This record gives sequence, C-alpha cells and structure tokens, in this order.
Amino acid sequence: YNIVLLPGDGVGPEVTRAARDILRVIGDFYGHHFEFSEHLIGGAAIDATGEPLPEATRAACVASDAVLLGAVGGPKWDGGKARPEQGLLAIRKAMGLFANLRPLQVSPVLAHRSPLKKEIVEGVDLIVFRELTGGVYFGEKTRTADRATDLCEYTVPEIERVARAAFQTAQQRRGKVTSVDKANVMETSRLWREVVTRIHAEEFPDITLEHALVDSMAMHLIRKPREYDVILTENMFGDILSDEISVLGGSIGLLPSASLGAGGPGLFEPIHGSAPDIAGQDLANPVGIILSAALLLRHSLKLEDEADSIEAAVAAVLAAGAVTADLGGALGTRAATEAVIDAIR
Amino acid sequence: YNIVLLPGDGVGPEVTRAARDILRVIGDFYGHHFEFSEHLIGGAAIDATGEPLPEATRAACVASDAVLLGAVGGPKWDGGKARPEQGLLAIRKAMGLFANLRPLQVSPVLAHRSPLKKEIVEGVDLIVFRELTGGVYFGEKTRTADRATDLCEYTVPEIERVARAAFQTAQQRRGKVTSVDKANVMETSRLWREVVTRIHAEEFPDITLEHALVDSMAMHLIRKPREYDVILTENMFGDILSDEISVLGGSIGLLPSASLGAGGPGLFEPIHGSAPDIAGQDLANPVGIILSAALLLRHSLKLEDEADSIEAAVAAVLAAGAVTADLGGALGTRAATEAVIDAIR
Ligand SMILES: CC(C)[C@H](C(=O)O)[C@@H](O)C(=O)O
Ligand SMILES: CC(C)[C@H](C(=O)O)[C@@H](O)C(=O)O
Repeated sequence: YNIVLLPGDGVGPEVTRAARDILRVIGDFYGHHFEFSEHLIGGAAIDATGEPLPEATRAACVASDAVLLGAVGGPKWDGGKARPEQGLLAIRKAMGLFANLRPLQVSPVLAHRSPLKKEIVEGVDLIVFRELTGGVYFGEKTRTADRATDLCEYTVPEIERVARAAFQTAQQRRGKVTSVDKANVMETSRLWREVVTRIHAEEFPDITLEHALVDSMAMHLIRKPREYDVILTENMFGDILSDEISVLGGSIGLLPSASLGAGGPGLFEPIHGSAPDIAGQDLANPVGIILSAALLLRHSLKLEDEADSIEAAVAAVLAAGAVTADLGGALGTRAATEAVIDAIR
Repeated sequence: YNIVLLPGDGVGPEVTRAARDILRVIGDFYGHHFEFSEHLIGGAAIDATGEPLPEATRAACVASDAVLLGAVGGPKWDGGKARPEQGLLAIRKAMGLFANLRPLQVSPVLAHRSPLKKEIVEGVDLIVFRELTGGVYFGEKTRTADRATDLCEYTVPEIERVARAAFQTAQQRRGKVTSVDKANVMETSRLWREVVTRIHAEEFPDITLEHALVDSMAMHLIRKPREYDVILTENMFGDILSDEISVLGGSIGLLPSASLGAGGPGLFEPIHGSAPDIAGQDLANPVGIILSAALLLRHSLKLEDEADSIEAAVAAVLAAGAVTADLGGALGTRAATEAVIDAIR
C-alpha cells in the first residue's frame, strides 16, 4: 500500500510521525507493507516552493492509495499572497473529495471533561457528512476597492452523491439522517432540500429523514446532541457545525476525519489545527491523527480488523488515563503514541 | 409615541399582547402616552392578503417611532409560494435595519438550567452585533433545474456602519470587540476584516479588537463564553452564532433582540420562533418580548429609566421563581406577565 504523508505545519509533522509509527506496527502485526512517501503542503510548501500545493504533491496524492495529513496554517503566513489553506482546498478539489466525515463518540471516561453537562453528552454517537468541494468555498469571487462577492453554488449531482453517501452510512448505523440547510433564505438550500428529499424517497425509504435549519441546529446540537445519528450538510454549514460538535467530547485533540471521493484515494486528518504555540514541544495529542489512520485503513484500504485494532487500543489507553496534557494527563506526544503501540501489541 | 405592533404567527399574538400590557403600565407610571396600532405580517398577512408584508404594514412601520414584533412562520405555510419569513426580511430591508443586537446575560438564578456547566456560563455578559441587511440574505439568487446559486455581497459602507455601532457599544461596556469572519476562504470576509481593522485603527484605537474565524468561534463560544464582550459579524454567521449563544442561558424564551437603522425607528422582537405547537394555550414565555419592549424604550424612545424599570422587574420575577413551564415554573403567559406588572408597581 502506497500512503502519502503530508505533515504540513505547526504540530503537523510530530503527529504525522506518530501515526506513521502506529501504521508500521499494524503493518508488522498483520503482515502488510505500507510504503510511505512524504510531501509538502501548506505553509511548509510555500516556504520551500512558493506554492501551497506543489504539483509534485498533487501528483503523488492522486496516484496514492491514501493520504494522511497533519495540519496546515499559522500566523507566520498571515497576510502573504499565498495562503497555506489554499493548499488544503486545492488538494480536496484535485482528489475529488466531496464527502468529509467526522464521527463523534463521547467516551464515558472523558464525558466529564466536556463543557456540557455529563447527562447531556454521555452516549453521544453521531457522524457529520459535510459536502467538501462545492458551495461558497469554490464559487467565483470578485473584489473591487468598494465591494466583494462570493458565489455559493450547488448542482444536483453534487448534492446527490454526498446525500447517497450519508444515507448509506445511516443504513449501517441507527437509520436516521438529519439534513441541515437554510431553506427559508437560500436558493441553494431549497435545491439541497429538494434533492435530499428525492434521493431519500427513491433510494432510501427505510431511513428516517428530517430537515433542520442551520440556526436551530446550532442550538439543538448543544441541547440534545444524543438525538442525532447522521448529520448531512453543505460545505460552509458543515465547517461551522462540525467544529461546534467537536467541543462536546471534551478535547478536540481526539477527533479524526475522513475525506472521500468516488472510489479514489481518501484523505485523512485530525480535526485540530496546526497549534503553532505548542509545535515541536512534544505536547500535541496524537490521538486525533491516530484515529484518522484507523479511518484510512477502514475506508481507503478496506482493512477493517486493522482499523478496529487501533480504535480498541486508543479506547484502552484513554480508559487507563494514559493521555496528554490537553486531557489532564502527563504524557508527551511520543509517550502517548508508545502507549497506543503497547496496547496494540 | 407611536408604536406599531406586528403580532405575526403562532405564539406571536399572545406574547405581543403581554408586551403591550407592560408598556401601558409603564406609560401610566411615567406619564407617557403610547399609541399602539396593529398590523399584519408573515403567515397571518399571507392568509389575509396573499402577501407576507402588505404595503399598509410597511408604511405604518416606516412612519412609526418603533416596531414590536411577535414571531413569524409555521408549517402551515411550508411549500407555499409566499413564505412568512419573506415578510421579516422585507421589513428589515424597508426600515434599513442594518444592525441586529442580541444581548445575553446569564442570570445566576437560571445558570443551572443551561446545558453547559454552571462554572462555564456563570457571569456570561455579551452582546452580538449581526449585520442584518446584506450578505447572502439579499444577494442575487438563481435557479435552473440542475443548479442554484446565492450571491454573498458586501460593500465597504455596509461594513463600516455596523462596525461603528459595535465599537460604540463596546466603549460603554468592557471595551472589547471580537469580529468574526471566514477570511481564509471568503472574499467578503477579507473585505470585512480589512474594513473592521481600519475603522478600529482610525476611530476606536481605545477598544481591543480581535478577529476570529467562524468555525473556531463556534467552539470558543461553548468553551469560554465569558471571554466575550461585543461580537461583531455578518448576516449569516450572526444568524448561526447568535442562535448557538442563545442556548447558554438555559431558555431561549428569555432573550430579546433589537434591530436598528440609521436613526429611524427600530424593530424589537424576542429571539424565539412562532412555536405553533404551543400557540394559543397561554404557555409561551412572555419574557423575551417584554425585554424586547425594554430595548424599544431604551434604543428607539430614549426612555432609559423606563427600560431599567422593566429589566429590574423581570430580574426580580425570575429570582422569585415566578416563571413559565419552559423554566420549570407553573405560570401561564398571562400570569407571568401579571407577575412582571406587579414587580413594576
Ligand atoms: C483551513 C480551512 C480552509 C478549513 C475549512 O474551512 O474547510 C478547515 O476549517 C477545515 O474544516 O478543514
Ligand atoms: C426567519 C429567518 C429568516 C430569520 C433569519 O435567518 O434572519 C431568523 O432565523 C432570525 O434570526 O431572525
């Protein structure tokens, strides 16, 4: 298996190394050979080449079996002409990664660390499907001295494919999809609601579908997060709501994400940012990228047992309290990674 | 003083009546004459005239000293060609209400009802300034069988005026403004950030200004809401974040809002919706609209003592536990209103 590593910026390199070590252990244990190649993206790529997504990186990603990314961005590149985030947006588009999946399970061991009351977050088990290559992110932009515009644009096929992916996942879960839009204001949201409703009726009548407005959803996610199973939404709303949700579990450092296209390689990354303030100090929580590596095994390499084994090891380590400082523990990035490796063994 | 009442739909009429009764008591007590005229908006207006904002309503609002609105919308009008919400958007535009203010103070008496831990929400005291007549709400929309678009658009003067309003308010508070955008993706956000930064430097150097991305703000608001004083943002982000924030205080039924223009009459409304499921049953919490009436007195009629008197009465009533069912109390809408009237007296 040919895996591209994109360490990126800030804590990206150290957590990417942690995930690579875990994957090597899994490879030895189950008898797979993972071939790793490292490429530049984000601020690191701007520094080296002037561009946030060099052509060599793009080509390697597209030709790989899967991509594992650390993090991009940082104040160092603020105000520059090339922005690190452009690298991330460009690789999503180049790889056709139209669905961003963010699962959230609130661990009973960590529920007390949530800013929400334990009785509200305990047992939360949901997954966000965020459309990732459309909407206001990729529409035409204009700018004059006095005026700026961003175009939010969706086509029927763009909505259909991410809706199908969400419904299929719901069939393997609790059978419920909540589709989020702003249909009382936006034309793209009215199209979104129409298409999701039709795909549901035609292809997934066994699934329970409900529609919610993004503003009320921002409330409901805090008041009754346990009610949700699969949440399906467009790019910008997904960006906002999935970050809001990420707080429920007590530490954003734990959370993985998978970005998938139509059969090609997927891209996997923790949802935390590059955290330049703690970069290079062995302080970052490696769990987010380690669980992203598990999603990589499951979704891109179809190695289900191997993925389960990482997830079980992480659960054991969290239950034993072998955690980094963001979770009140005493371990550094490397020691926390070793703890997961020991648990796998 | 000439006050237009727009009862609207669902629980709108009964809470509007409550606020009118309170204003009458204040008028008697302080020797003001409030002249009320009632007009149609939303679903009620669609039923009666076919239009969500009849011309008579528009004309009366523009000619008034202030407008008090109940709520609009409901499933009854779903799928119809005319939507109740269009009435609300149209009156905001017609009255030039470019700034929507939503203050939130978490009452120590009610902090335990928040889904967040008491130690996180206790002492929260913030105000959201949401730009209300620009952005994706009012940009051009297109629709074909296969494709839909919404244009998000901002001009420099639109950003300047709401930024000034936010900075001025910060001068009377703790002196901090957090401006929220998505400058790593949107051109309108980059313009937003530039203009807010310039207005700050040129006119309000005494204020502390920070910028935040909307996705991280959705997290921070849950993790550390006490850190915020004035939050300034564009229309759609303001819609989402202010609803998210509204959950912190334990009941959305308590929260007022003010929509202001450049010197003309303002529009005041509770932030809760029309709640058709409990309409007409004397169950709705009148506090949201009663506190909106206080904002009306303060902002549009410049009657500061009168506004203070309503707010003090509400605080006393909440502290005494004389509350409606949404707050665990036994009072109906009318009895809760009477309790506030008694406290004013
Ligand atoms: C870095 C930024 C462009 C990106 C986004 O908005 O998509 C990030 O917030 C994310 O969610 O992956
Ligand atoms: C009803 C709807 C159009 C409105 C909005 O999105 O502005 C509402 O959510 C609000 O916040 O006042």
